Amino acid sequence: VREMLAATVYVALLGCLQAQQLQGHVSIILLGATGDLAKKYLWQGLFQLYLDEAGKGHSFRFHGTALTSTEQGQEVIAKVLESLSCPSNTAPSRCAELKAQFQQLSEYRRLKTPEDYLALSKDIEAQVQHEGLREAGRIFYLSVPPFAYADIARNINSSCRPGPGAWLRVVLEKPFGHDHHSAQQLAAELGSFFQEEEMYRVDHYLGKQVVAQILPFRDQNRKALDGLWNRHHVERVEIIMKETVDTAGRTSFYEEYGVIRDVIQNHLTEILTLVAMELPGNVSSPEAVLQHKLQAFRALRGLQKSSAVVGQYQAYSRQVRRELQKPDSFHSLTPTFAGILVHVDNLRWEGVPFILMSGKALDERVSYARVLFKNQAYCAQSERRWEAEQSQCLPRQVIFYIGHGELGSPAVLVSRNLFRPSLPSASWWEVTDRPGLHLFGRPLSDFYAYSPVREQDAYSILISHIFHHRKDSFVTTENLLASWVFWTPLLESLAREVPRLYPGGAENGPVLDFEFSSNRLSFSQPPPEQVVPGPGSVPTPSHFQVLTAKYRHSPLISAWPEELIARLAGDIEAAAVRAVQRFGKFHLALSGGSSPVALFQQLATGHYGFPWAHTHLWLVDERCVPLWDPESNFQGLQAHLLQHVRVPHYNVHPMPVQRHQRLCAEEDQGAQAYAEEISALVTNSSFDLVLLGMGTDGHTASLFPQSPTGLDGEQLVVRTESPSRPFQRMSLSLPLINRARKVAVLVMGRMKRDIAMLVSRVGHEPKKWPISGVLPTSGQLVWYMDYEAFLG
Amino acid sequence: VREMLAATVYVALLGCLQAQQLQGHVSIILLGATGDLAKKYLWQGLFQLYLDEAGKGHSFRFHGTALTSTEQGQEVIAKVLESLSCPSNTAPSRCAELKAQFQQLSEYRRLKTPEDYLALSKDIEAQVQHEGLREAGRIFYLSVPPFAYADIARNINSSCRPGPGAWLRVVLEKPFGHDHHSAQQLAAELGSFFQEEEMYRVDHYLGKQVVAQILPFRDQNRKALDGLWNRHHVERVEIIMKETVDTAGRTSFYEEYGVIRDVIQNHLTEILTLVAMELPGNVSSPEAVLQHKLQAFRALRGLQKSSAVVGQYQAYSRQVRRELQKPDSFHSLTPTFAGILVHVDNLRWEGVPFILMSGKALDERVSYARVLFKNQAYCAQSERRWEAEQSQCLPRQVIFYIGHGELGSPAVLVSRNLFRPSLPSASWWEVTDRPGLHLFGRPLSDFYAYSPVREQDAYSILISHIFHHRKDSFVTTENLLASWVFWTPLLESLAREVPRLYPGGAENGPVLDFEFSSNRLSFSQPPPEQVVPGPGSVPTPSHFQVLTAKYRHSPLISAWPEELIARLAGDIEAAAVRAVQRFGKFHLALSGGSSPVALFQQLATGHYGFPWAHTHLWLVDERCVPLWDPESNFQGLQAHLLQHVRVPHYNVHPMPVQRHQRLCAEEDQGAQAYAEEISALVTNSSFDLVLLGMGTDGHTASLFPQSPTGLDGEQLVVRTESPSRPFQRMSLSLPLINRARKVAVLVMGRMKRDIAMLVSRVGHEPKKWPISGVLPTSGQLVWYMDYEAFLG
Repeated sequence: VREMLAATVYVALLGCLQAQQLQGHVSIILLGATGDLAKKYLWQGLFQLYLDEAGKGHSFRFHGTALTSTEQGQEVIAKVLESLSCPSNTAPSRCAELKAQFQQLSEYRRLKTPEDYLALSKDIEAQVQHEGLREAGRIFYLSVPPFAYADIARNINSSCRPGPGAWLRVVLEKPFGHDHHSAQQLAAELGSFFQEEEMYRVDHYLGKQVVAQILPFRDQNRKALDGLWNRHHVERVEIIMKETVDTAGRTSFYEEYGVIRDVIQNHLTEILTLVAMELPGNVSSPEAVLQHKLQAFRALRGLQKSSAVVGQYQAYSRQVRRELQKPDSFHSLTPTFAGILVHVDNLRWEGVPFILMSGKALDERVSYARVLFKNQAYCAQSERRWEAEQSQCLPRQVIFYIGHGELGSPAVLVSRNLFRPSLPSASWWEVTDRPGLHLFGRPLSDFYAYSPVREQDAYSILISHIFHHRKDSFVTTENLLASWVFWTPLLESLAREVPRLYPGGAENGPVLDFEFSSNRLSFSQPPPEQVVPGPGSVPTPSHFQVLTAKYRHSPLISAWPEELIARLAGDIEAAAVRAVQRFGKFHLALSGGSSPVALFQQLATGHYGFPWAHTHLWLVDERCVPLWDPESNFQGLQAHLLQHVRVPHYNVHPMPVQRHQRLCAEEDQGAQAYAEEISALVTNSSFDLVLLGMGTDGHTASLFPQSPTGLDGEQLVVRTESPSRPFQRMSLSLPLINRARKVAVLVMGRMKRDIAMLVSRVGHEPKKWPISGVLPTSGQLVWYMDYEAFLG
Repeated sequence: VREMLAATVYVALLGCLQAQQLQGHVSIILLGATGDLAKKYLWQGLFQLYLDEAGKGHSFRFHGTALTSTEQGQEVIAKVLESLSCPSNTAPSRCAELKAQFQQLSEYRRLKTPEDYLALSKDIEAQVQHEGLREAGRIFYLSVPPFAYADIARNINSSCRPGPGAWLRVVLEKPFGHDHHSAQQLAAELGSFFQEEEMYRVDHYLGKQVVAQILPFRDQNRKALDGLWNRHHVERVEIIMKETVDTAGRTSFYEEYGVIRDVIQNHLTEILTLVAMELPGNVSSPEAVLQHKLQAFRALRGLQKSSAVVGQYQAYSRQVRRELQKPDSFHSLTPTFAGILVHVDNLRWEGVPFILMSGKALDERVSYARVLFKNQAYCAQSERRWEAEQSQCLPRQVIFYIGHGELGSPAVLVSRNLFRPSLPSASWWEVTDRPGLHLFGRPLSDFYAYSPVREQDAYSILISHIFHHRKDSFVTTENLLASWVFWTPLLESLAREVPRLYPGGAENGPVLDFEFSSNRLSFSQPPPEQVVPGPGSVPTPSHFQVLTAKYRHSPLISAWPEELIARLAGDIEAAAVRAVQRFGKFHLALSGGSSPVALFQQLATGHYGFPWAHTHLWLVDERCVPLWDPESNFQGLQAHLLQHVRVPHYNVHPMPVQRHQRLCAEEDQGAQAYAEEISALVTNSSFDLVLLGMGTDGHTASLFPQSPTGLDGEQLVVRTESPSRPFQRMSLSLPLINRARKVAVLVMGRMKRDIAMLVSRVGHEPKKWPISGVLPTSGQLVWYMDYEAFLG
C-alpha cells in the first residue's frame, strides 16, 4: 500500500520527474532511528533536507532502522514523523502537505542480521528499477553506540553497498576512541570496510552556524584581517564552552571520558584549528580546507602537564558513587573542568596564547571563540571622551559567539574600532536593539553584531553538508588522529592529577580563575578550604625552609626543588658579580642533564643583574652527537639559557665534539683543542665555578666508574666511554675540575637517594665512585641536594 | 641696625647656642631674589627650611640679591617676606613670631660687580667672627637666566668661596643647554669654576612628592615588586604630562625649545629613569642612586625619527607671529605636543614600550607615570562577578599620580588585585571617600590609593635636600649629558618635521592618538583637514618612491636611505622565508662596515617573521683582529643583530681569524678551515644570499685591487692584504661569491658617488675593480644604492 501511495505522489510530482531521473535516487538509512539523538535532531534534519532538496532533481527515500521489531519501531517512528515541524514561515496547511509527503517517503525496518542488510539493498534496487530511476547513492547515518560500529560496517560493506556509479556515505557519531591508540584501532577497523571519502565523522560543533561561519568570515574579510590575524596584533585567543548543568545521570559515560575527551579534544579543538589555520586561497574547496587544518594540527606545540589546570565540581564523586554503585571511599579523579594553554608554533602565531576552557556546573552557559587584539595605542584624550568607533584604546576583539550567554543567540561580533565586517546579508542581520547589554567588558553598541536571520540546528546543517559532499564539515581520519596525537600525552600526564574541587554555579567565585606565562598555567588562587574532604592533603614543599648542613665534610644546602634552584641560582649570580668586579670576567662551566634545566630557566628569567656580557660559558661534558642534536648537552644550554640571555657569541665555548664532520674522532684532537682553549682564556685553568651533577652510579661530568682517563693524570679534557647511549663522551677531567675556585654539585630527585646515602659514607675512591674524587685543591665545594635526594 | 636686631634674636635663642656653634653657620644667597620663581616658591622654601632646621644646631642667614638697587630690592623683598605663609596647623600669633624671626635673618643686597661679591663674603666672615660662630657653608641659589651663569659663577669662585672647612653649594635652574653640544659647553664652563659635588642642578619634578616617592616605594615594596617589575609582567609604562594651558606670553622662550626640551628631556626622562633603573641595595645612598640612574640612561635604545609623533596647537604660529613680530608668512615648526616610544635595552625591560607624552592645549591637566601589567589570566566566572580584590582579569596597575587630573591631588595608586602597598604611614594616608570617581578605567575603590598627609611644594622639598646634601634629587653633569646624548639625535631628526596641527582642548578629539609597534610610532588617524593652512609643504624624502632601474645590466633599487634599507631588509626576509620553506635553512653571508649596521638594526627590530632559528650566518670578510675587538666585523654583527635575535649558537659562523692565540697565521689554516666548514654545511657552497658593499677604490668583501688571491682560482676563502689598517684580512673569494643564489650589493652615501659612476662604465676587470668581478654564475645580482650614491 505504502509503495502504491508513494508512486501516486511521484506521479503528482510529474513536473520534476525529468530532473529526478537526471540526478538519480538517494536512499538515506538512519540506524538507531528510534534513539534519542534521532528523535531530537536527526529526523528533523532529514525532513529539512527533503524540504530543501526535493524538486531539485533527486528523488529520496528515508529508511529508519533499529534492532527493535518492525511493529514497535513503526510506532515510534510514526510518532516522531508526526511531531516534525516546518520552517516558521510555512502555512499550516502547506506544512501538513509537506509532512505527509515526507511520511510517504519514510519507512521503518529492522536491521540486524546480514540478511536484513541484503534485503534492504535488494529492496532499494528493486524500487529504483521499478520506478525507472538511476541510483545516485546511499547515506548510512550510524546513530548507534561505538561498540556496534564494527558489525554494522561489515554488513554495509558486504551486503549493502550500492552498485557501480553510485556513492556510499557512512556517517559516524562520536566518540571516536578514547586516546590515540584506541582511535587508531577504530580507524583501522573502519578503514578495512570503507574508503576515507566514504566516511563522515560528525562533530556537531562544525554544524553550528557561527562555527561554520568562521572560515567564510575570515575569507570575506580578508582585506581587513590580513594584517591583523597574527602574533603581531593578536594578544590572545579564548575558546570557551561553559555549561551550568552537571553530569548527573550521565556519569557512567562521563567518568570514563572527562571534560577534555568530552568537548575539548573535539569541539574546542575544531574551533581552534578554524581560527588558527592558514586560510586557503579557495575556502570552498573541502580538500584545501582539510589540508590546511591538518597543518594547523601539526603546528600545535606539545602539551605538558603544566599546560593545564583541572577541576571537579564537589558533588561529582558523590554522583558517581551513587550511579555506579561505588563504595563510600571512592573519589573520582575525572576532571569536569579544564583550562588549557595551547601554543601554535608557526610564524603566524608564535607566542600567542590560545586558551581553551570548558566545565560543567559553572556559573553560566555560553560558548564562544574570542580573538582579542593587542592594545598598542595611546589615546591623548581623557578616557571619558573615547568613542567606540574611533578610539584604538578601547578593547578590539572579534568574537564568534556560538550561543547562549547573555546575548542568547549565535552571533559574530566585531569591535567598531576594528572594521565593519562583511557577512552574507541574506542570511545574517545586524543586532542592535539590546540596550543595557554588556559583552566582554563593553556595551553591545561598541560592536558590529550579526546574527543568523534563521537559526538552524547543527544537525540539519550537517545533514545538508553530507548530502552536498562538504567533507570539510567533518572529521577526517588524518585530522582525528592528529588531534589525538596532540591530546593523548596531556591526558596521560593528567591521569593521576587530583582535580581542584569547586562548589558549582555562582558559588565558584574566582576559585577556577587561572593564569599563564609562557608554557605554564596555574590556578590564580591557593586551593580553597574543601567543603567536602579533598582527595589528599600531603604537605606541600613550600612549608619547608632551606636547610644548611655538611655532606662529605663540605657545606650542604638542602631544600625543596624550587627553593634549592633559587638558592643555587642566587649563589651563582653572586659569584659572577664578584668575579666580574675583581677580574672583569666570570668563567662558568655547566653540566647537561635534566636538573640544570630548571636552573637555566631560573637564571634566564629571574636574574637581571647577572653580568652575562662578561661571562664565559664552558661545558663540563658533552655527548658525541652534533650540537643541534636534542641529546646534546649544549642543545639544552642553548634552548633554556642562551636563547634568553645576551652572552656574546665568542664567550660561549661548546665542546668540539664534531670536527671535520666526524664525532669525537681521536685524530681530530677535539679534547686537546678544548684544553688549549681553556688554558688560553682561563687564568691558571681555574674556572670560577663548575656545576656538576651526580649519577646513580656515582659518575660525575662524563667520568664514569673505572674510566681509564680523566680520573687522574695531566690531561685537562678527555674522551670517555659511557655505559649508556650515546657511549662516546667528552669531559673535563677531575684534576681540571679540582682546580676550580668553586664547585657546586646539584643532586635532585628520589632516584638519587641511594647513591647520595652511599656516597655520604665512602672515602676518596674516584676509580669506584668518580664523584668522590671531587675535592677542589684550593677552591670551595658545595653540595646542593633536594629533600627527595637527601632525606630519602 | 639690622645686625643689632639679629644679634638680639640670637641672644633670645640662647638655649640653642651651644648646638649652633657645633653645627656652624649657613649662609643662603638667593640670586634673582626679586624674580617670579623666587617670589612664588623660593622664599617660601627658604622659610620652610628655617622652620624645619632652626633649633637643630645650625644658624642661618638669608641674603636675597639681584641687580636692582638696594632700595628697590628691599622694598620688593619686604613685601615677599610679609606674604609668607606658615604650615596650616600654626596658630596666627606663633606664625607672626616665626615670620618676624625669619625677616630678621633676611636681607636684600645688590650683587653685581666682583666687588659686591667680595663685600658679601667679607660681611659673612665678619658676622660669623663677630658672633663667635663657625662657618658651615654657603648656598648660592641661581634663580637667574642662563646667560648670567658664567659671570656669577666666576664671581662666586673668585670672590665668594667660604674658607677652608666650609662647603659651597651652587644651585642651578634649567635650561641646561639646548642640545648635547651646548650642554657640554655649559657644563665645561661651570666645571671650570666648581667641583661636581658643589653643583645642584634643579629639576623641580624631582621635588614633587610622588616623584620623590618612586624609589622609596619600589624599595619598601621590593618583595611584591621583585617578581613583577620586569618585561615578563609589565605590558607598558606611560609617563604623561598633559597641560591645558598654551604658551601664549612665553613664545619667545618656547619657540626656541619646544615640548621635548621643555619638559620631556628633563622631567619625563627623570621619571623614566626612576621607574626603569635597577634598584640599588641602599636607596638612601645618593651615589648608588645616581650611579644606577646613569646605567638606566645608558640602557636606553637610540631614538629614530619614527620613534616620535609631534603636534602643534593651531593658534601657536599666530601667537608666535604676534609676540615675536614675525611676518604673516611665518609658520613655526616647533612642536607643542609629542608622543615618544622609548625602549630600555636591558634584560629587565627588553620589549616593554615606555610611552612618553606631553602637550600644551590638551583637554585636561594631569601628570602621571603608569605601569600597566600584562593580563595573563583567564577568569572562569562571568565578568559581572569579578571583584576588584580578587580578579586577576581586571586591569593591574601601579600609578604615580603626580598631580591635578580628576583626583586633584598627588597619589600613589596600586590596583587591589596586585598587592597592598607599604607607604610611610606618618606622611601618606589612604584616600577612600571619592564616590563616582573613575581613574584609568576603574573606580577609585579598585585601588589602594595613598596621598601625602601634608602637600608640599617641590621647591621646599628640594631646598631641604640641598641643605641635606641629597645629591640624588638633582641632576649631575654625567646624567645631564647622558640625557642629551639620548635626546639630541631625535631633536635633530625632527628639526624639519612638520607637526600635525590640533585645534586645542576637548576639540582635539582623537586627532593626537597614536599607535606603536616595535620601534615605530604613528598617529592613529589620517591628518585632519587643516583649519589654518599648514606650515609648509616642502616635499620630504618619503614623497619619493623606490626607484627600480638597471645598473651594470642587473636590477638596481634606489631610494632614500631609510626606504632603501627597509626594502633590502624586506627582500632578505622574503628570501629567507622562501629558502626555509624549500630547504629548511637559509645561508646568509654578511659584510661588515657601517652601511650594514642600519640593515642589521632594521632586521633586528622590524622583522618578526624572519626565520632566525633556521638561518646560518656567515661572514663575507673579516679583519685579523680578535672577534671582540671593536674593529672586528663580527663585533658589529654581534652588537647590532645577534644581541637582538635568536640565532642558535652553532648557526653562527665567525671567520676563524684567531686560532692558537694568533691572528691569521698562515700555518693555522684558518681560511682553509672556513672553506671546509662552508663546503660541509652549504649545499654546493652556494650561499642563499651574499651581502656585499663597495669601497671607494672598487673593492668588495676584503678583495682589494690587484689582490694576488681571491679574484680567481679554486680557493673559496683567502687571506688578503688591505691598503689600510688593519692590513691583514680574510675574505670569501670572488668564485665563491659568484656561486651564490643571490648577491645584494649595498652602496650608500655621497662618498660613493664617484666610484658608483665609474663602475657603471667599466667592464669585467676584477683585477682593477674587484667589484666588477661580481657576477653570479647562475644566481641573481641586485644593486641597492641610495640616491646620494647613485644620483650624485
